Amino acid sequence: MSFSEYPSKLLENAVNEFASLPGIGRKTAFRLVMSLLKRNNDEVQRFGESIIRLRSEIRYCRNCHNISDNELCTICSDGKRDGSLICVVENIQDVMAIENTRQYKGLYHVLGGIISPVDGIGPADLKIDSLEEKVKAGSVREIIFALSTTMEGDTTNFYLYKRLNKYNALLTTLARGVAIGDELEYTDELTLGRAINNRNPYQQ
Amino acid sequence: MSFSEYPSKLLENAVNEFASLPGIGRKTAFRLVMSLLKRNNDEVQRFGESIIRLRSEIRYCRNCHNISDNELCTICSDGKRDGSLICVVENIQDVMAIENTRQYKGLYHVLGGIISPVDGIGPADLKIDSLEEKVKAGSVREIIFALSTTMEGDTTNFYLYKRLNKYNALLTTLARGVAIGDELEYTDELTLGRAINNRNPYQQ
Repeated sequence: MSFSEYPSKLLENAVNEFASLPGIGRKTAFRLVMSLLKRNNDEVQRFGESIIRLRSEIRYCRNCHNISDNELCTICSDGKRDGSLICVVENIQDVMAIENTRQYKGLYHVLGGIISPVDGIGPADLKIDSLEEKVKAGSVREIIFALSTTMEGDTTNFYLYKRLNKYNALLTTLARGVAIGDELEYTDELTLGRAINNRNPYQQ
Repeated sequence: MSFSEYPSKLLENAVNEFASLPGIGRKTAFRLVMSLLKRNNDEVQRFGESIIRLRSEIRYCRNCHNISDNELCTICSDGKRDGSLICVVENIQDVMAIENTRQYKGLYHVLGGIISPVDGIGPADLKIDSLEEKVKAGSVREIIFALSTTMEGDTTNFYLYKRLNKYNALLTTLARGVAIGDELEYTDELTLGRAINNRNPYQQ
């Protein structure tokens, strides 16, 4: 089925919009639109408005650039958090992933991307100046680089290290090692090599 | 990642709405919402409005019950179509599939479903009365049953036959046979049996 002609312009518009989303093809878009047509008017109104409001009313925390409903996000405005510890991440998905571990009690700094010459993203496109300002101000004890273990992540780590090394904060990265649940024989040699070199005292 | 806590209520609402669509899980919903956040405000406004307008302004053709922007759909209002030939289909997807073949020049009748006792759908839930009215009026020469070759489709075919047989129209169904591109050895025996019985003169 090519769905070359839609019986209604309204239908065609809605399908086109859904099909413009990443990973959604025209057939899936059509199926989603048909499922919306089966709902009552109020539900669909709420759906549409949730999208419009999200984009028009969303704010970003002025301290860490995380998504927020207020000027400061819930993490930055939480007095029990350790403000001298900053975890640098690529995007808000990473904030949520680390928050879900419930292991981290410091603050975050969302770069809004990662240095990637292939995609035309350089340091100036990321929130690096505001990170340097925080470190320069002197109240930061430690910066954790929590970026992807890809070439882009390593490049960004290196760039951040060069920029922030002259200040007084400790610069750390996430531990690299064998993932929990992984079988040794299927672990890639780079990871396994690092895991051997960074071995820890055995704890019962 | 469980995404148990979202940093923003607006974000959470939008993700919930997308995740309510069939086949869209929470992770996909989140990814779609994040892609919308990267667009500019006007684009997202247009997206949301296309959904709201679709539901609030959509109409159904008063003759064939196909989706339409006007009282009569483009097919029913096309004077070159043969109004004495009616193809009965389950839904508008089927109309579009048959239209894409460019082989059919009659009109349609969209039942809006198929008789399915398991799903609690009986004849009264479908647009069968209006189909009978058309046939009763006497101007219909042939009714083509173009329903799925499932038990529900067969049940609906049988019910329609019982209701419409007393009128003057010819009742036909789509040809059953080996699909084009199918290999004989993988064709199911029911289809192959029908294809042998309904064989046609060879055409060069």
